[in-house]
Amino acid sequence: MAHNIEVELTSNKKKKPVTEQLEFGKYFTDHMFIMDYDGEQGWHQPRIIPYQPLLLDPAAKVFHYGQTVFEGLKAYRTPDGRTVLFRPQKNFQRLNLSNDRLSIPAVDEEFALEALKQLLVIDQDWIPEEQGTSLYIRPFVIATQPSLGASTSTHYQFIIIMSPVGSYYAEGIHPVKIHVESDYVRAVRGGVGMAKTAGNYAASLRAQDTAAASGYAQVLWLDGVHRKYIEEVGSMNVFFKINGTVVTPALNGSILDGVTRNSILQLVRSWNIPCEERQISIDELYEAHKNGTLEEAWGTGTAAVISPVGELNWNNERLVIHGGQTGELSSKLYNTLTGIQRGELKDEFGWLVQLSS
Amino acid sequence: MAHNIEVELTSNKKKKPVTEQLEFGKYFTDHMFIMDYDGEQGWHQPRIIPYQPLLLDPAAKVFHYGQTVFEGLKAYRTPDGRTVLFRPQKNFQRLNLSNDRLSIPAVDEEFALEALKQLLVIDQDWIPEEQGTSLYIRPFVIATQPSLGASTSTHYQFIIIMSPVGSYYAEGIHPVKIHVESDYVRAVRGGVGMAKTAGNYAASLRAQDTAAASGYAQVLWLDGVHRKYIEEVGSMNVFFKINGTVVTPALNGSILDGVTRNSILQLVRSWNIPCEERQISIDELYEAHKNGTLEEAWGTGTAAVISPVGELNWNNERLVIHGGQTGELSSKLYNTLTGIQRGELKDEFGWLVQLSS
Repeated sequence: MAHNIEVELTSNKKKKPVTEQLEFGKYFTDHMFIMDYDGEQGWHQPRIIPYQPLLLDPAAKVFHYGQTVFEGLKAYRTPDGRTVLFRPQKNFQRLNLSNDRLSIPAVDEEFALEALKQLLVIDQDWIPEEQGTSLYIRPFVIATQPSLGASTSTHYQFIIIMSPVGSYYAEGIHPVKIHVESDYVRAVRGGVGMAKTAGNYAASLRAQDTAAASGYAQVLWLDGVHRKYIEEVGSMNVFFKINGTVVTPALNGSILDGVTRNSILQLVRSWNIPCEERQISIDELYEAHKNGTLEEAWGTGTAAVISPVGELNWNNERLVIHGGQTGELSSKLYNTLTGIQRGELKDEFGWLVQLSS
Repeated sequence: MAHNIEVELTSNKKKKPVTEQLEFGKYFTDHMFIMDYDGEQGWHQPRIIPYQPLLLDPAAKVFHYGQTVFEGLKAYRTPDGRTVLFRPQKNFQRLNLSNDRLSIPAVDEEFALEALKQLLVIDQDWIPEEQGTSLYIRPFVIATQPSLGASTSTHYQFIIIMSPVGSYYAEGIHPVKIHVESDYVRAVRGGVGMAKTAGNYAASLRAQDTAAASGYAQVLWLDGVHRKYIEEVGSMNVFFKINGTVVTPALNGSILDGVTRNSILQLVRSWNIPCEERQISIDELYEAHKNGTLEEAWGTGTAAVISPVGELNWNNERLVIHGGQTGELSSKLYNTLTGIQRGELKDEFGWLVQLSS
């Protein structure tokens, strides 16, 4: 794509929140990137404009038929003053996998990354510097055709907004209690569970609210067919350490191919820890807990990076993991991954993309 | 709810499309209804305003997490000049069932109907009068809180827009060819299949586009667990007449409780035709076709009312139904239901709600 990106700078810069106020995804930077799609011109008119509301016809298909996808990634300020992105190519690659599943036209991945870099240069003083903070980046596509026919949209917008964030969990990294969900299902093979699309999250809210009302931070999702195989935890991938081996559900079409999941697998394998991607049943976890081999559990995702699991509640059976404390491997993974992301540890896998200016 | 509805009339009435131009859900009336929700005030500030774009923060949760529900119903102009709605209470009742599943606060059903009636009075000259036409009404709720946390929204808008429509199918009522879907799944028990929410439609687009590319009008969905029980056809409920008995999938949590489906069941039972709501496997259909007892098949929905099925393609096995022609019962149901809806036949079930002015 040879398009030039038009830039309109704001004349009214916002006041930046102080680090202590950084609630996840609440504050947004001064600018946003946007481009349009129609059948004749394809993706066109890429532009960086002041952060502003979208003006959409009430019949726009996104409101009615949910044709939308998104991504989440982060930029960091390193102690030596560089601005880096963590594996952004993986995110734009996955955006197009999601687009494909949702019948949305593909975005040029290199151009999208270029657009993001330009936006980052403009808003780089929004990247917070304190330990544990970062700039969360949200690229997303919405279907904008104003028509109530339940069919694929003819028009779209691709948008990038950015939000300075502290830690995802207000209380910092500490183990959370998880409710194993037996009634509700997040996704099923043949559905859209592997895509990062709005409907998956909408489907999960009810179970999440019910779990929260009983004091559980997240829900552990079981598969929709057998209702026994582990899928995800909340909106994260999930890992277990059982008898010295790291296990995580295999990519089966109904779970997300997480960038953090992928990075954790690479780290674990580089440390020569046995590691398996396969089906894991809730019964297996229960047995492992009973015989004392369920050593650690944690969720992985861009927002939280690593979220240790201290307890699973399965039909009122409480499985306390690692005494309810963060496990050694969970800690080591968190420290290593966040260290690489912040440019404090050696980037031996070539995960960081540095901004040139 | 004792709220008064503020009314702001347009000073710039649109030109109405001629009947021949009426594409489904493409043109909208001069006004819309809207009201807001927040935790402190509940639903508030109900108003009728000129039809206009929505102004939403790009971080509004509807774009990212799909927390949204909708309804579809119709108003008709009767030959004697009355304006009638078809079973609107059922739609607002179902809106709240969908709201409940999507963690959206309930709407006052009586007030919503009152609001719709006021909107209809204002825009009543938009109701087309020709045979087969109607005013399609789309109430919907969207989550508007500008926050990227993957949690239930604190703010919503409830909106009603209206669109004059001709027949859903451009070519009028005639049998369509249907592809039996073996790869993709629309919904699963424990998910949101029984709710009228955006994600269900987003999940279906890919299969629909693939079927359309092979010359099939719609997809017949099989269940997500066994991949063999009939669920819906396209975005409609589905009925079969097998050996003199009308059968339709039972409400199982993954299919929609259609208002047209419910009306068809009442009609069929009032005619003393044997009628069953139960599981139907694709194998049973195949067997019935083989032994000549698969007599008719049709989809039901507000948009199309009745859509006869002339052929099913199941793994390249073509099941031609009723010689590819519209069956007698399908025709009778279509004529009876549309006759009642347009006020031409006696409303013996009390389905019509008449506008007082």
